[in-house]
Amino acid sequence: MAAGNTHRPRSDRRRAEIVRAALEVIAERGYRGASLAAVAERVGLTQQGLLHHFPTKEALLVAVLEDRDQWDAAIPRRDWRLELLTSLVEYNAMRRGIVQTFSALLGEAVTEDHPAAPYFTRRYADVREDLAALLRAEFGDRLPSGLTPERAAPLLVAVLDGLQYQWLLDPDSVDMAAAFQDFLVLLGE
Amino acid sequence: MAAGNTHRPRSDRRRAEIVRAALEVIAERGYRGASLAAVAERVGLTQQGLLHHFPTKEALLVAVLEDRDQWDAAIPRRDWRLELLTSLVEYNAMRRGIVQTFSALLGEAVTEDHPAAPYFTRRYADVREDLAALLRAEFGDRLPSGLTPERAAPLLVAVLDGLQYQWLLDPDSVDMAAAFQDFLVLLGE
Repeated sequence: MAAGNTHRPRSDRRRAEIVRAALEVIAERGYRGASLAAVAERVGLTQQGLLHHFPTKEALLVAVLEDRDQWDAAIPRRDWRLELLTSLVEYNAMRRGIVQTFSALLGEAVTEDHPAAPYFTRRYADVREDLAALLRAEFGDRLPSGLTPERAAPLLVAVLDGLQYQWLLDPDSVDMAAAFQDFLVLLGE
Repeated sequence: MAAGNTHRPRSDRRRAEIVRAALEVIAERGYRGASLAAVAERVGLTQQGLLHHFPTKEALLVAVLEDRDQWDAAIPRRDWRLELLTSLVEYNAMRRGIVQTFSALLGEAVTEDHPAAPYFTRRYADVREDLAALLRAEFGDRLPSGLTPERAAPLLVAVLDGLQYQWLLDPDSVDMAAAFQDFLVLLGE
């Protein structure tokens, strides 16, 4: 729409617009309720026009998640601390729609031949590596329990994911941020 | 089929047969690949006949999961120990289809108004309570870290679930049983 205000090609700008609209639609209606038609309407495209940019609903969702990763990447890895993860959990507790989208798509992605599986497999390998580096910066080569950062990292990831499911199902019974603090106690913080 | 060999009503036996068939179909094709038609065919019913017992694919899946809970319930709660959980994780690592089914359905269940949500919400509340009792039997009212059993239980559940997703996505990189052992080290075993 705002042609000429950037050197990015027009199709890149259009893609970014579609991804933003998809995020809005998902936040309002959840993953299952979101339709390509609703996203197309929001950006003033026909459904056919949208399919030119994103051939499937899953492809559009993966783009939304990759866009989400861009925000996370805004904080350089060397500045990651356990406190930052605590803030992230608190922030997630305020954006149920996004957490829901992410959790639902992760659930789908573990089924056979799902188009989002390569994204999640790669992402989890990266996240485990980043969190191992974070734990090493915090604790050195051994945590107080004797675990190496590389062995504690998958547990940290598992707790972050697992708590989200329990919280989404039962937000009154599960305080995600408090439970994550408890896990940091186990880690030796 | 085998009429007269039990006092259970015929429709109960038929239901059990359908649930067993559904489990087989899911193990072979995954959750997304499983169709009501395939299940109906396996038990010699028309799809209409199957719908009489289970009105939706989700309802059939919930029945499969409730059936799975029956197996778990075969071990009385007072005999639960952390070693038993370790064995369960090892057992799960040998039945990818079931773990996949469970993980995919949990992912769907956290979306708005999903028919499996009440099942999972109730199940997680029960599991947290059972695991708190197990931790109390093992450690008393405080774990070595100072956490109460009630505060450690959601973390134990989160680790069990979260590791399954990482393992399903990347079985060569994530050793679910070894990682669970590491978590027991954090708990103070």
